[in-house]
Amino acid sequence: MNRSHSYFQSRISKLQKCLKDWKVKGCVVEDPIDLFYLTGIVLSNAKLIVTNTQSHLFVDGRFIQVCRENSPVAVSLYEDKAAQQFLSDVSSLAFDSQKTSYDQFIRWKRLFPHRLEPVPGLLKSLRLIKDKQELDAMQKSAQLNWKGFLHLKKSLKVGITEQELALKFELFVKQHGAEKLAFNPIIAFGPNGAMPHYEPGKTKLKKGDLVLIDIGVVVDHYFSDMTRVLFFGPPDINLKKLEASVRKAHAAALKKCKPNVSIGQLDQAARDSMDKDGTTQYFLHTLGHGVGLEIHEFPRLKYNNAEKDLKLKPGMVITIEPGLYLPGVGGIRYEDTIVITKTGYRNFYKS
Amino acid sequence: MNRSHSYFQSRISKLQKCLKDWKVKGCVVEDPIDLFYLTGIVLSNAKLIVTNTQSHLFVDGRFIQVCRENSPVAVSLYEDKAAQQFLSDVSSLAFDSQKTSYDQFIRWKRLFPHRLEPVPGLLKSLRLIKDKQELDAMQKSAQLNWKGFLHLKKSLKVGITEQELALKFELFVKQHGAEKLAFNPIIAFGPNGAMPHYEPGKTKLKKGDLVLIDIGVVVDHYFSDMTRVLFFGPPDINLKKLEASVRKAHAAALKKCKPNVSIGQLDQAARDSMDKDGTTQYFLHTLGHGVGLEIHEFPRLKYNNAEKDLKLKPGMVITIEPGLYLPGVGGIRYEDTIVITKTGYRNFYKS
Repeated sequence: MNRSHSYFQSRISKLQKCLKDWKVKGCVVEDPIDLFYLTGIVLSNAKLIVTNTQSHLFVDGRFIQVCRENSPVAVSLYEDKAAQQFLSDVSSLAFDSQKTSYDQFIRWKRLFPHRLEPVPGLLKSLRLIKDKQELDAMQKSAQLNWKGFLHLKKSLKVGITEQELALKFELFVKQHGAEKLAFNPIIAFGPNGAMPHYEPGKTKLKKGDLVLIDIGVVVDHYFSDMTRVLFFGPPDINLKKLEASVRKAHAAALKKCKPNVSIGQLDQAARDSMDKDGTTQYFLHTLGHGVGLEIHEFPRLKYNNAEKDLKLKPGMVITIEPGLYLPGVGGIRYEDTIVITKTGYRNFYKS
Repeated sequence: MNRSHSYFQSRISKLQKCLKDWKVKGCVVEDPIDLFYLTGIVLSNAKLIVTNTQSHLFVDGRFIQVCRENSPVAVSLYEDKAAQQFLSDVSSLAFDSQKTSYDQFIRWKRLFPHRLEPVPGLLKSLRLIKDKQELDAMQKSAQLNWKGFLHLKKSLKVGITEQELALKFELFVKQHGAEKLAFNPIIAFGPNGAMPHYEPGKTKLKKGDLVLIDIGVVVDHYFSDMTRVLFFGPPDINLKKLEASVRKAHAAALKKCKPNVSIGQLDQAARDSMDKDGTTQYFLHTLGHGVGLEIHEFPRLKYNNAEKDLKLKPGMVITIEPGLYLPGVGGIRYEDTIVITKTGYRNFYKS
């Protein structure tokens, strides 16, 4: 990936343009992923302060050396006085109210006696739209995830445990270039699939089991996310019906995916489709979520939440993952990750 | 590990005893690791509310099934009204001010019109002292980490990259029972070791290089942490001197490890030792930190911070990791993880 200073400086410039919207003269970024997005450096316990005219990175002793060599903006060791000095001409400061702890807020209040403006998700609108480099990384991440899925599919056999399969997946993707797993793989046999966030256990695979596989990897810092369900032998007739309903809901949501459609409508389309099948009561979560440098990014796709009116735009990457869960019987989820294009969407996965 | 309901209920009882110290009638726990500590269930977006007389776990649809089967306390789907109902007789509520975001605090303020009491690190005093089961898990975790280190040591050869070594470590420990890595391994050749939080790259090993290895694994949910430095060929004379200074500082700190010594004294002992060698200026971080269900737990070991007067007690698990860093040349860190015993300490590692 491009790691030039100008690449990151242009992101910081975009952040500077947001200051006007928030009616502030500066902002402080402390979240490690946000800091990586703006500087290209993996940091913790650091602060990037951005004002209308300048930006400055404050770090502790562990990171000063790597930052002196790589930071796209001026850097120095953090001290309260140095931060106050840098902010001496600033009358208002935005902070990320979702990510800043209560204690940290109190510290800022003591340090900065002027107006502190809470902004939930300071970088969410910037990180929402992925550029070409980011999309290339996400495609690579999805491709490797898909290869890992095929490897898992080949590995299914009577008696193998969920944990053994999860490890097989991890070893395979690590040997093929994954930096890390996007999350602990969810591999659930039979009734275990009824728990949407199941942790793989020692359950052994047997003929007739449903196998739910929810996996993701990280390549070039970008996350992938995909769920498939495999029938290991002749399926239960009720689960077959649920599967058909999930597939229809999935297709109904995808059909809506193009610029200017609001994200609430996607979830609504999936629910309308399930309503026709009488299955909506078994849909226990939202339709999907943003994904990128984290597995769960803004927005959440739900028909009735605060973000429902957000309009799709080219470059937005979201998951579409309707699921139906029958306690004690099993669960079906079908998940793709897609990017919105000028005319519709591109799916990172094949069917 | 013991996963009986009574095991977790006794932890919740201990938390109830803390309510008096905080002068409140109840508390809310939302941090996933804290929730795991109190319930034995891996959760996100959940709330455990504990009052003097009862406790109740609120979760979302994804987790209701797993909680109905495994929760040591009553459980239901979260709704604002249900939480308010449960709290109707409660006049004051403690929350974790380190872990609760500003937005979440504002939500609680709206939901709960009475007194909200900020407590930094709500569970830190509970989690600080490890019981026998936890120590057994930590010993197992350390043993596997050590095996992984020996595997790395054998794998050193001219031309191998830092990333290749990091992957070798990961594959080995995963195949030998690690749930996951405790953190991205720090494997740094030569001058790269001068950055305490370096990420392994494509640098190739060559004769005469210093190899800094900082590794940890997770076994039964418990983290291990260890750093060693290997000389791959005849060492630079200056680095040899730094190494001797780090070893002396390490021994000086360990000598202090027994009940009732304050943690600030440990860091001070290491610094006093370095002062004699004239190396303290190259010591860029604190002496160590607590470790357990997370890689960095309370407390941080520093001579001059807010926690410096905390007294060592049997069952506390901490790292002792002095380090010296010469920009452009290399870094030396020597890290053990130890548990305080009735009479002194036990080191999870050999020399």
